[in-house]
Amino acid sequence: MSGRLAVVGLGPGDARWLTQEADAALAAADALYGYGPYLDRVPSRPGQVRYPSDNREESARATAALRHASDGAQVAIVSGGDPGVFAMAAAVCAEIEAGPQAWRTLDVVIVPGVTAMLAVAARVGAPLGHDFCALSLSDNLKPWDLIERRLDAAAGAGFVIALYNPMSRARPWQLDAAFDRLRQRLPASTPVMFGRAVGRSNETVVVTTIDRADPATADMATLIIVGSAETRTVARPGRAPLVYTPRAAQGVSA
Amino acid sequence: MSGRLAVVGLGPGDARWLTQEADAALAAADALYGYGPYLDRVPSRPGQVRYPSDNREESARATAALRHASDGAQVAIVSGGDPGVFAMAAAVCAEIEAGPQAWRTLDVVIVPGVTAMLAVAARVGAPLGHDFCALSLSDNLKPWDLIERRLDAAAGAGFVIALYNPMSRARPWQLDAAFDRLRQRLPASTPVMFGRAVGRSNETVVVTTIDRADPATADMATLIIVGSAETRTVARPGRAPLVYTPRAAQGVSA
Repeated sequence: MSGRLAVVGLGPGDARWLTQEADAALAAADALYGYGPYLDRVPSRPGQVRYPSDNREESARATAALRHASDGAQVAIVSGGDPGVFAMAAAVCAEIEAGPQAWRTLDVVIVPGVTAMLAVAARVGAPLGHDFCALSLSDNLKPWDLIERRLDAAAGAGFVIALYNPMSRARPWQLDAAFDRLRQRLPASTPVMFGRAVGRSNETVVVTTIDRADPATADMATLIIVGSAETRTVARPGRAPLVYTPRAAQGVSA
Repeated sequence: MSGRLAVVGLGPGDARWLTQEADAALAAADALYGYGPYLDRVPSRPGQVRYPSDNREESARATAALRHASDGAQVAIVSGGDPGVFAMAAAVCAEIEAGPQAWRTLDVVIVPGVTAMLAVAARVGAPLGHDFCALSLSDNLKPWDLIERRLDAAAGAGFVIALYNPMSRARPWQLDAAFDRLRQRLPASTPVMFGRAVGRSNETVVVTTIDRADPATADMATLIIVGSAETRTVARPGRAPLVYTPRAAQGVSA
């Protein structure tokens, strides 16, 4: 039997956001690779072997999984959220490009998933309702001045902005700097949403404004959405406010 | 029993990308609202009533569903892809803001889904591997010069760009104009991907470059991804090329 590598998005949180395709891909695997806490979210199945690894070992994990699939196994790499958004799919593609020619003939399938910004947006309403962008705040893989340039471009052109990887112990000041940057281009009342561990039992969601946004609200498990000048907050008695960005730009009737 | 409105993302294509939460929300509904072809993708369940409507009747559909839920029914509005991305969730929020005060106390839940750009990206590799944006090319709800400004900002700052609603009978020239605009800022060899009806039996995926991208490849069912200067194409013997954008910016080691 020839080998196969599936790169599987689990969605954020628990199994509620797992797709049918992802469930089937996990069930068909002989071997599962992934960051330990993501693997822990996959139910055990008899005969499957698990290879947990650390969060930062993406290249090594991709290489090991490709080698294993080349030997004829049905291999799955699991990824939180969607594997194509700041996750494992690009690492697998890079190893295929750099690796032995045989890897290019391997059956590789990417199984998409619900990415974190969609889940956080759903929790508060529809803040991604018009044009938006997704930006990783990690300057491990790109220079900080490029991040600043992208923040300026996105806020200046009126995109809603989803911030991935806003904070870690090794990157303590970047989120504060990003908020300062955004405050120069956005109205003080622009809604900002922090979604932490969304879909898990310890989920928290905080809705505030850019002038009050506190970087200490965020950690590694947080996804932040910064609205545009058009994003609206609707107060609701006895319920959390709804936050949404109208599809129609101001002055255009829907 | 008090009413509830769920705005449910079906994902693109067939049921493979339906999440467990979406499936449960559909099963719990007394009444289903939505664009006819999306409703057709939901299996019939005894006792459920369906209210199909036209693609452009988003406000009227949202209002009817809110009224129905206010009367105490369990109502679901279905949306292709993710309801928060150029779809029904923002329309529902807008009607809640504009409507009677009672609607603000209603139990409203948004059920996220796999949005089209994630599915198209998965088909070709990982083109959304670094910072990216999602932009609707429809100038029904915003002026064309704002779209041009966003295209310039996104391409100029190195975002990968997913183009939603690239083409319709009423908007025949906009995609051509957008490609021309992007050619001024991107290398001629920048990969461009057209994904049509992804996840359905008539799915087609075309990978080309910005200098060769032909607007005639697209229609209403197409999602386009335009890479950045860093997006790479990996030839594979006997297989479609892999397209991916490395997480690490050029000159930065991973």
